[in-house]
Amino acid sequence: MKDGRFLSLEGGEGAGKSTQARALAAALGERGVHAIVTREPGGSEGAEAIRALLMQGEAARWSPHTEALLFAAARADHVEKVIRPAIGAGQWVICDRFIDSTRAYQGAAGGVDDAAILALHAFGTRGLLPDRTFLLDLPVAVGAARATQRDGAPADRFAMRGEDFHAAVAAAFDRFAAHDADRFRRIDATQPPEQVTQAMLDMLEDWLP
Amino acid sequence: MKDGRFLSLEGGEGAGKSTQARALAAALGERGVHAIVTREPGGSEGAEAIRALLMQGEAARWSPHTEALLFAAARADHVEKVIRPAIGAGQWVICDRFIDSTRAYQGAAGGVDDAAILALHAFGTRGLLPDRTFLLDLPVAVGAARATQRDGAPADRFAMRGEDFHAAVAAAFDRFAAHDADRFRRIDATQPPEQVTQAMLDMLEDWLP
Ligand SMILES: Nc1ncnc2c1ncn2[C@@H]1O[C@H](COP(=O)(O)OP(=O)(O)OP(=O)(O)O)[C@@H](O)[C@H]1O
Ligand SMILES: Nc1ncnc2c1ncn2[C@@H]1O[C@H](COP(=O)(O)OP(=O)(O)OP(=O)(O)O)[C@@H](O)[C@H]1O
Ligand SMILES: [Mg+2]
Ligand SMILES: [Mg+2]
Repeated sequence: MKDGRFLSLEGGEGAGKSTQARALAAALGERGVHAIVTREPGGSEGAEAIRALLMQGEAARWSPHTEALLFAAARADHVEKVIRPAIGAGQWVICDRFIDSTRAYQGAAGGVDDAAILALHAFGTRGLLPDRTFLLDLPVAVGAARATQRDGAPADRFAMRGEDFHAAVAAAFDRFAAHDADRFRRIDATQPPEQVTQAMLDMLEDWLP
Repeated sequence: MKDGRFLSLEGGEGAGKSTQARALAAALGERGVHAIVTREPGGSEGAEAIRALLMQGEAARWSPHTEALLFAAARADHVEKVIRPAIGAGQWVICDRFIDSTRAYQGAAGGVDDAAILALHAFGTRGLLPDRTFLLDLPVAVGAARATQRDGAPADRFAMRGEDFHAAVAAAFDRFAAHDADRFRRIDATQPPEQVTQAMLDMLEDWLP
């Protein structure tokens, strides 16, 4: 059986990743492709237990290095128990955040060395990367406004960080996309949801039956 | 103020590490040295939360690589929040298990590369090693019998592993002690508890007031 494809959605808070993960899976389904939706941190039973440690508590609960290790542990479990088995069974996997979020949040914004984060990823998952990563491009302030409209107060340890933190995250995503144009596709996330989904679908055309 | 000393106690299940950590702290106290007792995994609020994930559930709940990342995360938090501050304040720290247990359990017995485990340790703690590590030497079967007498059924995910696993752990501790005679001291743990404590105290004489 042919291996499935592994897609990730990245971008700042409120960019539409979770909305688009579901919408893209539905659109792929209409084209006859079975896609599972999963998310990080979490996505497997063990990783969801680690997620609870990562998302709850004060912003300063964990140092950036400890946080990077916890993300690497959660991702190792998620890849081993859910992502690799699904891809191996010919399914497509759409992941709401993946390694690039750790590189942006703990790395660029948190001060942890990017090469070290990639080394942890190599250790935990043998370096699995998505076949394609969609970067949902949205001004930080617009995403923050959408998230506030959705949640009211900041919903977790990351959402509660300041403007500089989120600007550093956005700048990091920009750099990653510029340096790996093969894997990344930028999507204008100011568009209405249907158009965002269609833009991604168009960019997957070559892989569709 | 002079930095405190950092001691670790290592050895297989039931070797007497927890008993001796307390006894050594009491003996040091009588010599005018304030020592805190801590343990791994755990020892700080965050690390104790990670400990619960590590110790509970089925033996196969986590792969050895995921487990090594979780131990590294717990140790990073423990070192940052408890061990380094205490040493910096001139206290002695006695730790019931430390990095060598990860090298023995996840490394030698679990199949994870020793250099990779030390690299995670360098990432999480800047490579902090104990000033002295006491290896409590006891035949695996004797330790298992003591632990059974203490707990009845195996008490956690590690105690429930088979004979081969525990033999690999013991052989690994032997190798570490042979390769780093500067840091390690072997203690005959078949002796009565008071003699074990005295043997450690004798080996610390040079550092005592
Ligand atoms: N294209 C869009 N235009 C306007 N609003 C949108 C669009 N996409 C999503 N939204 C709304 O914005 C909010 C944030 O969307 P969503 O939860 O999908 O973002 P997210 O990137 O997953 O956020 P987070 O980083 O917090 O998980 C939701 O209320 C959603 O309904
Ligand atoms: N020197 C000794 N002689 C006989 N029994 C001992 C001795 N030291 C400890 N014990 C007993 O053996 C049991 C195991 O000791 P302890 O809990 O200190 O071991 P441990 O190395 O911490 O075990 P674990 O690896 O399970 O944490 C306890 O019931 C303890 O009272
Ligand atoms: Mg979301
Ligand atoms: Mg003990």
